[in-house]
Amino acid sequence: MAFVLNIRRIDIDTGGDTQVVLLRGRDADAFGITPGDRLQIRYQQRTITAVADITHHSIRHGEIGVFTDLWRILKPTDGQTVTIDVLARPPSIAAIKKKLLGKEITASEIHSIISDIVSHRLSAIETTYFVASGYIKPYTTRELVGMVRAMAETGEMFTWRRRLVVDKHSVGGLAGNRTTMVAIPIIASLGLLIPKTSSRAITSPSGTADTMEVLAPVSFDGAAVRRIVRQAGGCLIWGGGLSIAPADDIIIRVSRPLSLEPYDKMIVSIMAKKVAMGVRYLIIDLPYGPGTKISSLVEGRKIEQRFRDVGRAFGISVRVKFDRANEPIGQGIGPALEARDVLRVLQQKDNRPRDLEEKALGLAGELLELSSFCTTGKGYAIATQALRSGRAWAKMQQIIKLQGGNPLVDADELLAGTLTADVKASATGRVSAINNRAIDEIARTLGAPDQKRAGIYLHKKLGDRVKRGQTLLTLYAVTADRLALARQALRLHTIITIGR
Amino acid sequence: MAFVLNIRRIDIDTGGDTQVVLLRGRDADAFGITPGDRLQIRYQQRTITAVADITHHSIRHGEIGVFTDLWRILKPTDGQTVTIDVLARPPSIAAIKKKLLGKEITASEIHSIISDIVSHRLSAIETTYFVASGYIKPYTTRELVGMVRAMAETGEMFTWRRRLVVDKHSVGGLAGNRTTMVAIPIIASLGLLIPKTSSRAITSPSGTADTMEVLAPVSFDGAAVRRIVRQAGGCLIWGGGLSIAPADDIIIRVSRPLSLEPYDKMIVSIMAKKVAMGVRYLIIDLPYGPGTKISSLVEGRKIEQRFRDVGRAFGISVRVKFDRANEPIGQGIGPALEARDVLRVLQQKDNRPRDLEEKALGLAGELLELSSFCTTGKGYAIATQALRSGRAWAKMQQIIKLQGGNPLVDADELLAGTLTADVKASATGRVSAINNRAIDEIARTLGAPDQKRAGIYLHKKLGDRVKRGQTLLTLYAVTADRLALARQALRLHTIITIGR
Repeated sequence: MAFVLNIRRIDIDTGGDTQVVLLRGRDADAFGITPGDRLQIRYQQRTITAVADITHHSIRHGEIGVFTDLWRILKPTDGQTVTIDVLARPPSIAAIKKKLLGKEITASEIHSIISDIVSHRLSAIETTYFVASGYIKPYTTRELVGMVRAMAETGEMFTWRRRLVVDKHSVGGLAGNRTTMVAIPIIASLGLLIPKTSSRAITSPSGTADTMEVLAPVSFDGAAVRRIVRQAGGCLIWGGGLSIAPADDIIIRVSRPLSLEPYDKMIVSIMAKKVAMGVRYLIIDLPYGPGTKISSLVEGRKIEQRFRDVGRAFGISVRVKFDRANEPIGQGIGPALEARDVLRVLQQKDNRPRDLEEKALGLAGELLELSSFCTTGKGYAIATQALRSGRAWAKMQQIIKLQGGNPLVDADELLAGTLTADVKASATGRVSAINNRAIDEIARTLGAPDQKRAGIYLHKKLGDRVKRGQTLLTLYAVTADRLALARQALRLHTIITIGR
Repeated sequence: MAFVLNIRRIDIDTGGDTQVVLLRGRDADAFGITPGDRLQIRYQQRTITAVADITHHSIRHGEIGVFTDLWRILKPTDGQTVTIDVLARPPSIAAIKKKLLGKEITASEIHSIISDIVSHRLSAIETTYFVASGYIKPYTTRELVGMVRAMAETGEMFTWRRRLVVDKHSVGGLAGNRTTMVAIPIIASLGLLIPKTSSRAITSPSGTADTMEVLAPVSFDGAAVRRIVRQAGGCLIWGGGLSIAPADDIIIRVSRPLSLEPYDKMIVSIMAKKVAMGVRYLIIDLPYGPGTKISSLVEGRKIEQRFRDVGRAFGISVRVKFDRANEPIGQGIGPALEARDVLRVLQQKDNRPRDLEEKALGLAGELLELSSFCTTGKGYAIATQALRSGRAWAKMQQIIKLQGGNPLVDADELLAGTLTADVKASATGRVSAINNRAIDEIARTLGAPDQKRAGIYLHKKLGDRVKRGQTLLTLYAVTADRLALARQALRLHTIITIGR
């Protein structure tokens, strides 16, 4: 239904980003317009489309306020009448209502929702209704597949000429983050393709992307990623530099206030990115048990089934590797300290953290078996051979070089010039608990991940014997005030607890 | 868990309205803080509480930005360390999650949600999750009662010494809005108490409050309302001037984008306000049929049952009066034109609109019977007698006077000085359709409800015979440009359709 209003010029140049026009609240109500509705505005032979916003300033009742940018297109005279049509609300709104009323939604309805989220045609409140609608009834496998496809297809997609495109993904927690930097060069050195994207730290003191950035740049566009992967068979880059599954970030934003993270959302988020990256074989590293996202192995098995069902629809073989994680893997916390652990493993130094090496070899071995690169039972040995022989390190050097870093880096060069402070044991006994949350907070207080060389080195791990006065951990900082701040914070938190 | 940050002064005086402090996104993530979380900030012996917000400007990693207002309370020196505790998230968040996961929530959980909505402790996104959670499972009667109680109790409440406190409420549509102004003085003139609050126009050209405002002010605080009702036994005021059930407006705001209006929300919204006003007997005027909120009488009966169940919990007798509405009641559209219709009925003029009189007498009669003021079958006659005898008009004069208006007003004084334009019939025949939506739009274009004397007068109603060239309707405006605008809009819309 069309209506007429007097046009009023608003002398602001918005730079063309937001094609917004202003209405008085009562006029908007009268015409059934809510903020965010799209309007078509006609003046003589010219037409513009803009988004309605409500104001109580600048314009009067019966007027429509038009900013300089759109004014130039329409070329009216101030006060003249224009004809306005409310354009149909995005059909995705109807689809969200349908899901909210408990009905299954089709692949094309899902696509309309995701695509409207990505292009900001849906507001935060509308997106919230969509997220909430997922609680009405569990998503059917068909809906999950539709979500994954829509999220992948509304972003950048990668295809590869080779069949053996593999990946590993760690879910949540700090444990295992650094295994990626060991496992990827092992896999790539054996001739498989592993186009790995990682995230930066969200709640931990360093994400894989932050740690890799100690050794080489990690932010590349799609063309650069294709070039690196074609040459080295693998990469270690930051996923945020690409626009794979861009709806995910927006959905995460409205999920935060209630700390909602249903399994389905996690599955969709992970699988959409793997579909976008063209992965065919995928190992998922899933910690379970109290304090993790998955409370029991029974629960875990159900999630594995969902992963496999979705994977099947896209020709992706998925295997979930369950793992209990009580403490960090490796001894360094913070980008450079973690990179040092990784280099020590790849360079096969005597002081390398064995738990990190073990876990990375296990994951690499599983991936080799899942992709039928080798028969069952042989993967671990093949991965070990690639590491021991120096081929994995040579592959890592190639990746570092292609990403623009220094391939001649040595593990012990990474921490030059940092300020340190040791924390000593106040009693003799055995390490009975390691407080991961305190590690995170103190490491962030020390400056990680922004200050690459800041962090914590754990000299003792769970079960280790300690004597009173022995060094339990060392704090690393770049500036004295950060070190002082951390020492102050340490009075509030205990990182390592010693039992009898 | 506490943590420490360096305090940084932000030289802006916010006027004390928003007690916000700023954190860098990565610090907030590290400490598990989301925007809107409440923080307690300690410096020496002093403590402030503030809401966290995220910024990428003004402060650095490891800093907390504090505006001048809070800075004055804390009295730190720039760069010193402060200790920060994240205060527990409102328990209402957990209650919303519980409802979203399909569980029934208790009265005290409902109270915590509503009270946090009212005090803006819940964000728009969190409130959206609450609204969406209503779709997981229908509210139980116990939950509905809890909602009504919480919404009433978080706002202003009225209690009256008399038992016969009655009310009528019209649901949606423009039909019946003006019956209120006829029925209230009839009821009050018979000695019952009817503390009537009305709304202003949302989508129509005039709400009862807008129409009453032609005759007297309508915006009063609680004390004034108590005084008026004690003296006159009734009032005709704008509900928005009081703060009864204030959560309702906030919930409506987040419901709009999806145009969600489930019956339960409507029941809660109406009943909360009646509980707050201390009403004991309530007639609900409910239009049904295609194009209204209630599609069938069967549906309507279910809603009636819900209304009665909720009413019972508060000692309110509820009766629903079903009605089909195809066209406006009365002939005037717009505040003054509607007020003229009302005065013509109350002053018993010959040219009074009989449909308005009939409907108002019917509603008043039902209310008299429901409250046992009289026996069944006698209400209509008693109401008619109050109107014919002039007692209802005398009561209306008292209400107008107590609200500060002119009790000597005559129906025909209200439209002096307006510009008019007649719309003539282009054919001979019978009125076969009246387009209510077009009436709304044209009347708003003419300036209603802001311009009280603007509007439309319908000379013909459904089924009336018309001859070519006869006046179908008259447009009223205060300024020439509005009249011109409406004539232009009339080219796009037909208000009265003439069939053969």
